[in-house]
Amino acid sequence: MAPLIKPTPITGFPEFLPEMRLVEQHLLDTVRQIFERHGFCSIETPLVERLEVLLSKSGDSDKEMYVLGRLQDKKGEEEARYGLHYDLTVPLARYVAQHEQDLTFPFKRYQIQDSFRGERPKLGRYRQFKQCDIDVIGRENLSLEYDALIPAIVLEVLQKCTGMLEVELRLSNRKVLAGFCAALKIEDPTPILRALDKILKIGPDGVQEELTELGLDAKTIDLFLTLGQIKTEDTSFVDKIKALGIKNDLLEMGLDELVFCFNRIKAYNPSAPVVVDLSLIRGFDYYTGSVYEVALRNSDFKDALGGGGRYDNLASTMTKTKLPGVGMTFGISRLLGLLVDQGIMRPNRKSPVQVLVVNLEEDKQKMIDLGKQLRGRGINTELYLEGGKLQKQLKYANDKKIPYVWFDSDNTLKNMETGEQIIADPTTWIPDNK
Amino acid sequence: MAPLIKPTPITGFPEFLPEMRLVEQHLLDTVRQIFERHGFCSIETPLVERLEVLLSKSGDSDKEMYVLGRLQDKKGEEEARYGLHYDLTVPLARYVAQHEQDLTFPFKRYQIQDSFRGERPKLGRYRQFKQCDIDVIGRENLSLEYDALIPAIVLEVLQKCTGMLEVELRLSNRKVLAGFCAALKIEDPTPILRALDKILKIGPDGVQEELTELGLDAKTIDLFLTLGQIKTEDTSFVDKIKALGIKNDLLEMGLDELVFCFNRIKAYNPSAPVVVDLSLIRGFDYYTGSVYEVALRNSDFKDALGGGGRYDNLASTMTKTKLPGVGMTFGISRLLGLLVDQGIMRPNRKSPVQVLVVNLEEDKQKMIDLGKQLRGRGINTELYLEGGKLQKQLKYANDKKIPYVWFDSDNTLKNMETGEQIIADPTTWIPDNK
Repeated sequence: MAPLIKPTPITGFPEFLPEMRLVEQHLLDTVRQIFERHGFCSIETPLVERLEVLLSKSGDSDKEMYVLGRLQDKKGEEEARYGLHYDLTVPLARYVAQHEQDLTFPFKRYQIQDSFRGERPKLGRYRQFKQCDIDVIGRENLSLEYDALIPAIVLEVLQKCTGMLEVELRLSNRKVLAGFCAALKIEDPTPILRALDKILKIGPDGVQEELTELGLDAKTIDLFLTLGQIKTEDTSFVDKIKALGIKNDLLEMGLDELVFCFNRIKAYNPSAPVVVDLSLIRGFDYYTGSVYEVALRNSDFKDALGGGGRYDNLASTMTKTKLPGVGMTFGISRLLGLLVDQGIMRPNRKSPVQVLVVNLEEDKQKMIDLGKQLRGRGINTELYLEGGKLQKQLKYANDKKIPYVWFDSDNTLKNMETGEQIIADPTTWIPDNK
Repeated sequence: MAPLIKPTPITGFPEFLPEMRLVEQHLLDTVRQIFERHGFCSIETPLVERLEVLLSKSGDSDKEMYVLGRLQDKKGEEEARYGLHYDLTVPLARYVAQHEQDLTFPFKRYQIQDSFRGERPKLGRYRQFKQCDIDVIGRENLSLEYDALIPAIVLEVLQKCTGMLEVELRLSNRKVLAGFCAALKIEDPTPILRALDKILKIGPDGVQEELTELGLDAKTIDLFLTLGQIKTEDTSFVDKIKALGIKNDLLEMGLDELVFCFNRIKAYNPSAPVVVDLSLIRGFDYYTGSVYEVALRNSDFKDALGGGGRYDNLASTMTKTKLPGVGMTFGISRLLGLLVDQGIMRPNRKSPVQVLVVNLEEDKQKMIDLGKQLRGRGINTELYLEGGKLQKQLKYANDKKIPYVWFDSDNTLKNMETGEQIIADPTTWIPDNK
C-alpha cells in the first residue's frame, strides 16, 4: 500500500469547522439581507480574469497575484494568460465596461466573493479571503446622494453585525485637501497626503517632522497639522476650516459636499455615529471626493473594518464611457475573526438542526412523518435514523449542541440546555431560538 | 493614452447579468433551505488543494487540472504545488481525514462551491462551474438508512427546483451486478459494466454486440441483457431477477438493500417517482452498493441531473480510519441552464427591489423615512434619490422590472404590471409577489 498522504492545512487558506461556518453563514445572510433591502443586486464574477485586465489597475498589486497554468502543459510551453482576482474592484470595472449596454444605470451592486493574493501570509492576512464590496456606478454622472447612501448602508450593516461593539463612520472629502494644496500652490500633494495619513500612528509630532523633511515652511506645516487634527461630530468643521483663512473653489466644493454628506447620513439615521475627520485619506490616487472608513470606537482594535470613497472613472482603461462611482469594501473573513475574538459571535452549534428526533419506536414511519411535519413548518429537523440506546442518541444531540430532542414514542420534547421536558404538539410547537 | 483593453468574456467562465444572478440566487436558496431543513451543515473548503491530494483520486482527472503559480516567479523556478479543486469529493475526503477528531459522526454535510477544470470548453461544459454535493460519512460503519435518506432529499430538492418538469429517481445496487458476475465466475466485471452502462445510448442490440466481443457465451449474454433491462416502479424486480436462476450471497444482499432503499424512499414520500433500473452503473470503481441518478421524465433532455451512490471508504489514501459514505452530486450551473431553457425559471427582474419610491417632494426626508418604514417590514425598497421628472423615474422602474412604484408625495402606489393605482398605507401594505 502507498504511504498515507497527510491531510494538512495550507497556510493562508483558512477552512472552518461546521460550527464556525454556521456563524459565517449568519454573518453573510445579515449582510446580504441589508444590501437587498436597499435594492442592491448581487453579482458574481469568475474567479479568473485576463492578466492584462488584472494588471490594468495601477499600484503594485501585481506582485501578489496568482496565475493559472494547466498541469499537463510542459513548463513554459504556454504563457500564463489568466490570474485569480485579488480584489473585487477590477472585476467590477471589467464587468460594467463589458455589460454596459445591458445594465441599468445608476448600477447598484454588491458582491461577496473570495479574492486571492499570493503574498506571504501574516496574522490576519490570508491568501484566500472573503470580501464584500458595495458600489453605485453612474454613466457620465452620478448624484452626490450616493456619497451618503453608501456609507449609510455600510454603517447599518456593520452596526447590525457588531452588535454590542461601538462602531463609527469617519468621513472626509479629498477635494478639501486638494483645494487646500492648490491654494498653497503645492503641485504634488501626494507626499503631504502620505504624511497626514499617518497622524493616528505617529502622532502630530511625527507628521510635523515628515512635513518639515518635505521642505514646507513652518506656517504651512502648522496649517496642515491644524487641518489634519480637525475632528467633529457635527458640521462645525466648516467654521474651523474657514478659520484657517485659505480660500479656493475646490476647497469650497469639498466642504459643501462634506456638509451634504454628513447631513444626509443623519437623515438616514439621526443617531448615526459620524465623525468628520480631515486626516482620513484612503489611498493616494484613486479617490476624488468623499472618503470613508468604519472603525471600532473605544477598542484596542484600531484597524478600519471597512472603507471606500468616490471615484471619477471606474474603467478608464476599458471603455470611453465615463463611469463615476462611489463604493465601500470590507473584509468578511476579517470581520468574522474580530466578532469571534470579541465574543460577539460564538461558534457553538455544529449544524443548523433545531430538533433531533430520537428513535425509540420499532417502526420508523412515525419519526419520518414527524420530521416531515416539523420541516413543513420551517423547523430544521434531523432524525436519528440508526435508533439504538437513548443515551447514545442524546449524546449525539449533545455533541452537536442541538437545542431540542423529540422522542418519537410519546412526543416528549427535551430542552437540551435547561433539561426541561414537556409533551409537545408537532402541529403548533415553535422552538425558542431559531 | 494607452489603447483600451477590450473587456471580453473568457470562454468557459460564465458570468451572469443581474437578472440571471437573481434566478441563480433563488435556486441556491431553495437547495440550501431543503438541505438545512434535514439538518445538513454547510462546509466550504479552500479552492486550492495540494497537488498530491488532488492526484490521489484515481481516474484521469489530472489532465483537466488547473495549477497555481505566482506572477513574480520566474518560469520553472518553483514547481507547482497547488491546484484548484476539480470536484468536491476530493476536498471532502481531505476535510474529513484532516478534521476527523473535531467532527461528529455520522457527519452530514452539503457543499455548494465552484469547481474548476482546465479542459477545452464545450456546450454545457464549463471550466468554472457551481456544483452541489451532499454526503453522509460514517466512522467504521454507516447505516443503510442513509442509502435512502440521501436520494430522498435530493429528489425533494430537484422536484422543488424543477417545478412542472417531471423528474424520476433511478435506483440500483452494485452488489446485484457484482454478485451476478461472481456467480457466473466472471473475474473482471468492469468491461461488462461498461457495456451495460451504454444500454440507453446504444440499445440492447448494441450491448449484445459488445458483450459478444468480450467473448461471453450466448446464454450469459442473454442473462445480462435481461438483467440490464429490468426496470420496475415497485419491488417486482426481485422476482424478475430471481427468475434468472442465479444464486449468490452478494446478489441476495444487494437485492435486500435495494428493496429496503426503495421502500424507505417511499416512506419519506409515498408518491416519490422511483424506478429500480438494473442498467444503472455510475462509474466503474468508486461505488460499492446503492447507486442513484435523477433525470427528467418525458423530456428530450436525457442527461442525468445528478447522481451518486454508496462508497466503502472515502479517504483511504489519507487516513487509516475507514470512512464509509453515501452521497450525491448535481451541477447547479447545469441545472440553472436547463431550468431557464425550459422556461421553468424566467430571468426578469434586474434587482431584488420590490418597491421603488419615486421622488416628487422637494424634501427627501419623507421618502427616506418611507423607505426605512417599508424595509423595517421586510420589503426591499429602493429610493429614486435623484428625483426629477416622474416619467424618467417610472422608466427606471420599468427598465429594472420593479413591480411597484410608490409616490412619496401622496402614498399613491402603482402596480407596474397592471397599471393599477391605489393609495397605500406603509404600515400595513404587503406586496403581492415577494
